[in-house]
Amino acid sequence: MAQQPDCLFCKIVAGEIPAIVVAEDERTIAFMDINPATRGHALVVPRDHARDLFDIGAEDLAACFAAAQRLAQSMPAKLGADGVNILNSCKPAAWQTVFHFHVHVIPRYDGDPLRLPWIPTPGDGDEIAAAGNELRS
Amino acid sequence: MAQQPDCLFCKIVAGEIPAIVVAEDERTIAFMDINPATRGHALVVPRDHARDLFDIGAEDLAACFAAAQRLAQSMPAKLGADGVNILNSCKPAAWQTVFHFHVHVIPRYDGDPLRLPWIPTPGDGDEIAAAGNELRS
Repeated sequence: MAQQPDCLFCKIVAGEIPAIVVAEDERTIAFMDINPATRGHALVVPRDHARDLFDIGAEDLAACFAAAQRLAQSMPAKLGADGVNILNSCKPAAWQTVFHFHVHVIPRYDGDPLRLPWIPTPGDGDEIAAAGNELRS
Repeated sequence: MAQQPDCLFCKIVAGEIPAIVVAEDERTIAFMDINPATRGHALVVPRDHARDLFDIGAEDLAACFAAAQRLAQSMPAKLGADGVNILNSCKPAAWQTVFHFHVHVIPRYDGDPLRLPWIPTPGDGDEIAAAGNELRS
């Protein structure tokens, strides 16, 4: 796997930094965002490092959005979500802060107050783990 | 092509309602959003009707995000964009208002004031056409 030194998400892919992994396949891994915009907010990343949407190859791009769709489709039953936003931020002008391509899969709930960009604030660890368990089930 | 009666985007795909088309391929068509969040905001839709992210098939999903990537990659050179957001809204809880799957490709500019959801307001027609011409070139 093509890793980038000092890349947070490469370290998560490699298991060097812990994360609550909720799905994985040959090309991608999905884990809980520790600064969730809503309950159940997860990220899908390619195992191989790619900096952003401009940089990622076609096969990893397709795999990431296919994985994001599967995760999104599970959210109504598993989390009680009423909808989902898929978001990618490419470059700082578009709110990108971690420079390893990632797709946000953000469950939405009728009447939730979400506005983007959300203010990244550490979520409650137990609550994130609980949502992760529901998604993984 | 599988069309849905009374679907706005099916009518655009069929050419029954005019749109500023900036790219197309066998499975997808990309056109300018008439209520742009930023200058150059475009949409990618599948030619075949699918209601949303939960509904769309794997091949059309991959084709739409591949087309969105190509369009995004062109935006720095063609529009002077500094970044891009890719957004999909699935279900009203996630701000979906047109129920034909679509990917927002939103060019971003350093320091632009965008917040999501933006307030959909008709853009200036000439300005949208000008940005469309730049993207199509």
